[in-house]
Amino acid sequence: MLVSNNGIGRAVVDITGKLSRSTRNLKASEVREILALTEGKRVLSLAGGLPGPEVFPKDDLARIASRVIEELGDSALQYSPTLGVRPFREAVMDFLRSKGVKVESDDDVIVTTGSQEAIYLLAMTIINPGDTIIVESPTYLAALNVFRYYGADFVSVPIDENGMRVELLEQKIREAIQKGLKPKLIYTVATCHNPTGVIMPNERRKELLEVASKYDLLVIEDDPYSFFVFDDISFTHLKTLDSEGRVIYLSTFSKILAPGLRLGYMLANRQLVRTVELAKQMVDLHSSTLSQYIALYAIREGVVDKTIQRAREAYKVKRDVLVESLKEYMPKGSQWYKPRGGLFSFVYLPNGIDTSEMLQMAIDKGVAYVPGKNFFSDGSGTNAMRINFSYLPADKLRLGIKLIAETVMSYMKSKGIMAS
Amino acid sequence: MLVSNNGIGRAVVDITGKLSRSTRNLKASEVREILALTEGKRVLSLAGGLPGPEVFPKDDLARIASRVIEELGDSALQYSPTLGVRPFREAVMDFLRSKGVKVESDDDVIVTTGSQEAIYLLAMTIINPGDTIIVESPTYLAALNVFRYYGADFVSVPIDENGMRVELLEQKIREAIQKGLKPKLIYTVATCHNPTGVIMPNERRKELLEVASKYDLLVIEDDPYSFFVFDDISFTHLKTLDSEGRVIYLSTFSKILAPGLRLGYMLANRQLVRTVELAKQMVDLHSSTLSQYIALYAIREGVVDKTIQRAREAYKVKRDVLVESLKEYMPKGSQWYKPRGGLFSFVYLPNGIDTSEMLQMAIDKGVAYVPGKNFFSDGSGTNAMRINFSYLPADKLRLGIKLIAETVMSYMKSKGIMAS
Repeated sequence: MLVSNNGIGRAVVDITGKLSRSTRNLKASEVREILALTEGKRVLSLAGGLPGPEVFPKDDLARIASRVIEELGDSALQYSPTLGVRPFREAVMDFLRSKGVKVESDDDVIVTTGSQEAIYLLAMTIINPGDTIIVESPTYLAALNVFRYYGADFVSVPIDENGMRVELLEQKIREAIQKGLKPKLIYTVATCHNPTGVIMPNERRKELLEVASKYDLLVIEDDPYSFFVFDDISFTHLKTLDSEGRVIYLSTFSKILAPGLRLGYMLANRQLVRTVELAKQMVDLHSSTLSQYIALYAIREGVVDKTIQRAREAYKVKRDVLVESLKEYMPKGSQWYKPRGGLFSFVYLPNGIDTSEMLQMAIDKGVAYVPGKNFFSDGSGTNAMRINFSYLPADKLRLGIKLIAETVMSYMKSKGIMAS
Repeated sequence: MLVSNNGIGRAVVDITGKLSRSTRNLKASEVREILALTEGKRVLSLAGGLPGPEVFPKDDLARIASRVIEELGDSALQYSPTLGVRPFREAVMDFLRSKGVKVESDDDVIVTTGSQEAIYLLAMTIINPGDTIIVESPTYLAALNVFRYYGADFVSVPIDENGMRVELLEQKIREAIQKGLKPKLIYTVATCHNPTGVIMPNERRKELLEVASKYDLLVIEDDPYSFFVFDDISFTHLKTLDSEGRVIYLSTFSKILAPGLRLGYMLANRQLVRTVELAKQMVDLHSSTLSQYIALYAIREGVVDKTIQRAREAYKVKRDVLVESLKEYMPKGSQWYKPRGGLFSFVYLPNGIDTSEMLQMAIDKGVAYVPGKNFFSDGSGTNAMRINFSYLPADKLRLGIKLIAETVMSYMKSKGIMAS
């Protein structure tokens, strides 16, 4: 049958039959679906990774945007190179150096449409079906989804309060190789880990790089959050510790300026950046020129550094509110790491709780979170949830935690689960 | 060997060995390479599809950008839905209706990072390796590249001064099916064709849709240029003529507002848009929120319509300069269609000329174009070139054509080619 009736009197093409095999079974990102589900409703969202809008430097950006368009409009409104606008790329490299990230002479930077696109382009560029990627367990869900789409297998390394348990890494890799898997890549959010907020000490970082060298693995250091370390913990970026060009460094202006600009970037060996550039030519040609000029001026005028400082202070206060609220409200048997930085906390609830199933109850109560199993490559984490603490004002954050705790209590009661 | 020496004393990973099979042999888009080649040099570029910067509504956009950030910054600087910001998507639909594009009740719009991303996401969503795509010959090079990356085969239908020779379409499809190919899709720039500037009359459009219906093909109507029709030629969008939900309509704000915003969009059956949305979740999460708000206000305040009118007038003048200059300077035996709209002209030079080989000579003389073979799926077009007439001021445009003609003359002389 060529056409079917769509029920409103018009014969339409059978779209399902036209979809490519690779997208026919695509599933929605649960976070994006939750955002859609809660759109327009009075739901306290602890789900997304949204910056608190109070840290957006609105006045500065309004002034900069207007000036950039008036004075540099011929360039800022025009097409621009796939790699990114040159002075912006140079400013990004200087900015990174100022934050202790080593930029090698054979490194290059490519600007991406958010760091999501950097992850996507990297996957497109280096993953063959059957390649094995070593990830933290739990890890960032959107990276898992992209890697999975490109046919990767996963090896999960558990974390503790110091991030990936690197002492298990080599054993995990050996087991994988014995099973016939092909480890290619370690993906890590080593600093202010998503979703737990823990920070990997330098000892472990060095060991991770030694193992990567021994097994010739690339390392993706996904680093959106290292600007927001709340406690007195020192660390050195993996990119800086690396001497072999193995580390691919990803970050973004979404958390330190404004996500609405959609500006991420990748710093890596020039040859890899060149291949990513060719992929990006096909995907979206280049990222917003206007956003790049705005961010360039925001770096130059110190607006980015000011925003980082303001956000760090605001998020630290919220982190403390979160931890207090978790202690006050969550049922016995709940566990979490104290987030040392970043935007998230990951809470393990008593066994028997299915946070995916419980989500609708939470939304009905007026609060949203991300169910934990999205952060695991192996389907575990059913009893966990990720809670964001950067977006809501402190009083709403406290109320959100209270509502989640009430939801958990109701859910446990309805299922006959006893607190341990 | 795990690492190799990069010649500057540092042992680095062998990147080539790490690239995925699908990207290892990626070639650069010749247009992007030309832009890179000419960066910073005093070269008159007739290569890209750049709007003339004199049509950018700089004052309006400066004012709107500043206002949007000040008044709506909490939203305009924040993350936004993958489909696009709702009021902007609604404004796009209203805008399309006002231009005679039919929007069905089961249609939806998704905002993309330029219409390049719309093409990419569509390819990702509907092309399986071995699917056959019917294209005009010549056709838009970047679409060819993306379709090729996804493993498509091509059937080329030649054009004349009325666009695709639709009377050949059914025969071409039958031949393809007999050869065991699987036609799935017709890709057409029916209005102000890229690269020739011709416009397909409604008769042919209706016949194209009949054939598409008979063979159950989807149709991509790629429509960035229909706002710039210079002569008194009427046409109806394929999307409007379609009654079966076969036509996927793509367009962009790059030519009618500013490319630097990176805003394209796709209008199609909701089910297809939904799958494209899931693909976009992985690729870049969403397009610039700030750009979307700016474009929203530019539509509402009439800035877009004003820009269209100004650009149409400016480009018509330049088109006339182009045609006069071609007549004046190009060697005997050169041929082209008079562009009825859009930004481009496609010039066939005397046989024996290889415009790819000749390009470096042209750049040395101070002018750039795009070699013709990029616009063909079958490697033909060696003696052709695409010339853009929207970007340069009229006097520079005339000089550019003169320099190209001089290059052609020198090249012919050096190769012993006689003008016919």
